[in-house]
Amino acid sequence: MKGYFISLEGPDGAGKSTVLKEVLAKLGPKLKTQYLVTREPGGSKIAEKIRQIILDPNNEEMNDRTEALLYAAARSQHVEEIIKPALSSGKVVFSDRFVDSSLAYQGAGRNLGIDEIKQINNFATGGLEPNLTLLFDLAPEVGLSRIQKLRPDQEDRLEQEKIEFHEKVYNGYQEILKKYSERIVKIDASQNFDQVVNQVVSVLQDRLKDFL
Amino acid sequence: MKGYFISLEGPDGAGKSTVLKEVLAKLGPKLKTQYLVTREPGGSKIAEKIRQIILDPNNEEMNDRTEALLYAAARSQHVEEIIKPALSSGKVVFSDRFVDSSLAYQGAGRNLGIDEIKQINNFATGGLEPNLTLLFDLAPEVGLSRIQKLRPDQEDRLEQEKIEFHEKVYNGYQEILKKYSERIVKIDASQNFDQVVNQVVSVLQDRLKDFL
Repeated sequence: MKGYFISLEGPDGAGKSTVLKEVLAKLGPKLKTQYLVTREPGGSKIAEKIRQIILDPNNEEMNDRTEALLYAAARSQHVEEIIKPALSSGKVVFSDRFVDSSLAYQGAGRNLGIDEIKQINNFATGGLEPNLTLLFDLAPEVGLSRIQKLRPDQEDRLEQEKIEFHEKVYNGYQEILKKYSERIVKIDASQNFDQVVNQVVSVLQDRLKDFL
Repeated sequence: MKGYFISLEGPDGAGKSTVLKEVLAKLGPKLKTQYLVTREPGGSKIAEKIRQIILDPNNEEMNDRTEALLYAAARSQHVEEIIKPALSSGKVVFSDRFVDSSLAYQGAGRNLGIDEIKQINNFATGGLEPNLTLLFDLAPEVGLSRIQKLRPDQEDRLEQEKIEFHEKVYNGYQEILKKYSERIVKIDASQNFDQVVNQVVSVLQDRLKDFL
């Protein structure tokens, strides 16, 4: 794969997508290759259909293993249709969420086990790993209160979970960070917006040297 | 689990569901407990939504791993919501297709590997296995020509596959039969309807002794 694959991780409300937008406004024009921004769950026609089932608040009887397998199914399609072709053609790919989200939310949050969920996802991705993961680190109660301010009446099925769930997810991310410390860089998402943007820009200027 | 779990396997066109209907007309009234007939993919609200994505002929860009994971996701929901509660309450459960279908269609037919697909499905089912599996054995070209006569304009995404695919599925079933010979009983589905019904009734009279 000639391109470079970057995933963005962390709780909803940590500002991943708005920060990325600003970062790309600054760095995008300097990139020697094209870049692609995509997101999970979703990112392709079939994956978006799966996303609808996963996030629909009416599907409250969904069991945890089903949820984990649906995320993996959507990811598999996303990888084959979108991410791999872009990397093969030399693009820099930014994905808002990737495998680590499943390890944190389903593995830790749902108590299904980080290693068990990793195995399912290795099958789904054929072993594709990001070159770099930016973990937006933010206390769960801060992320939740930001979301509730932003869109008070539109919580999806996972956002509706209780604070205990989001604390388990937070701890899951810390465990994943220890486990894959070479791949993951922690971003302090409690800073103000400009500070977060600057931290991300500085990390990318270093990691994307060959593409700038 | 107090109940008894029977899966029906084999190609489409082998007559699984029509034979089962006739078998239950004969045996059903003699059963001491209630029975439940269900099917895969599907069998519950969420699983039916997943089924729609799997079988939609418009989803031609679906990759093989996505397909395998979607089947596993639907199955996981089916097991938790429908099969396990029925078995816990002592029912005899008949499922038109279960894990062996994924081993044959995705593992063998799609070349993803029978053991790899088994692993994904062990996660999906939490290890639940049928007590008995009836494998409706029928040469793939016979099954296909029966379907084409029955519903010539309504083939789903998997039925549209070429004969080579269905031959790989057939060989997959033979391999699974060898591997799990204690659980699986082969039914000769090339016999005429009454003969097939009689063979199934005779197998069930033996295996369901405690329920008759």
